[in-house]
Amino acid sequence: MSRAVWQVLADKGFGGLTLRAVAAELGSTTGLLTHYFPSKRELLRHALDVAQEQGERLARPDAGAEGLAGLRAALLFVLPLTPEATVMNRVWVSFWDAALGDPELTAYEARRYERWRGLLRPHVEAALRRGELAAGSDVDDVVAGAAAFGHGVVTQALFDPDRFPPERQVALVDQYIAALR
Amino acid sequence: MSRAVWQVLADKGFGGLTLRAVAAELGSTTGLLTHYFPSKRELLRHALDVAQEQGERLARPDAGAEGLAGLRAALLFVLPLTPEATVMNRVWVSFWDAALGDPELTAYEARRYERWRGLLRPHVEAALRRGELAAGSDVDDVVAGAAAFGHGVVTQALFDPDRFPPERQVALVDQYIAALR
Repeated sequence: MSRAVWQVLADKGFGGLTLRAVAAELGSTTGLLTHYFPSKRELLRHALDVAQEQGERLARPDAGAEGLAGLRAALLFVLPLTPEATVMNRVWVSFWDAALGDPELTAYEARRYERWRGLLRPHVEAALRRGELAAGSDVDDVVAGAAAFGHGVVTQALFDPDRFPPERQVALVDQYIAALR
Repeated sequence: MSRAVWQVLADKGFGGLTLRAVAAELGSTTGLLTHYFPSKRELLRHALDVAQEQGERLARPDAGAEGLAGLRAALLFVLPLTPEATVMNRVWVSFWDAALGDPELTAYEARRYERWRGLLRPHVEAALRRGELAAGSDVDDVVAGAAAFGHGVVTQALFDPDRFPPERQVALVDQYIAALR
């Protein structure tokens, strides 16, 4: 079931997530699926769990890097540099439509963003301790700025992979990190 | 008709754009609307035109600023700093779901991004001429980086306006511009 839900998300995004699409993927009937998901909302909740799990399965490179090198690795991790990471990004960006239209999902996405910024924060704190950032830099602002830059590269690369091949995405992050120093 | 389509986009995003929703907004019938929009695709095309027109109606501040000051003004222009700009951003971010699921719409969004980068480019070129950027900076990369930063602030602010009030969004852009110098 989870595999079928993930396949629908990967192919069609959250906008294409319907009981009918999941049933087709399973070779099942919509009627049978309503036993598992009495409503679209239940299906959406399950899909969010599935997308979260898939994200956690992606290999994290350079987990040992510290300071700005760690921030760089953490940003590269979210970029669509591989087919798997591209699918993951397509799924999450597609979720923003549903998330903006529903207060509960808006709050869910706000928490997800806050968790992500929480993963970036220790690297920024270490960079500050190591003197890689100007003394007195505001940690929360550097974190939010880095998150902004990363996601903005993601969206441009998703729509225009020819102009934003992996090596250019990496170069942009390197330039951003260099400017922080 | 255009007003009703815009109202549906503003309230529900592209994901909620249906003939039924537009008909309800108009106090009309779905059947009548199919004379104007024989298919969902026609409705979507009209909605894209309407969203584009609405965006062009927003007042552009600081049109006279040059170099990095001009780049700053152009980035502030896209941020959700006012209710009108917030609605505009909600509409466009919601479009990304539909755009990622359809090659024609992906190409549309890639062109729209390229047009936007084209609006930022003259400011970056001027900044380079004025010596506000390191000699030898790659104009296309600075432009893409600035676009990335701007849109990444947009998405974080849309989901978490309490953490990203207008004054913080402006401060983040100011820090980004300062780091470019």
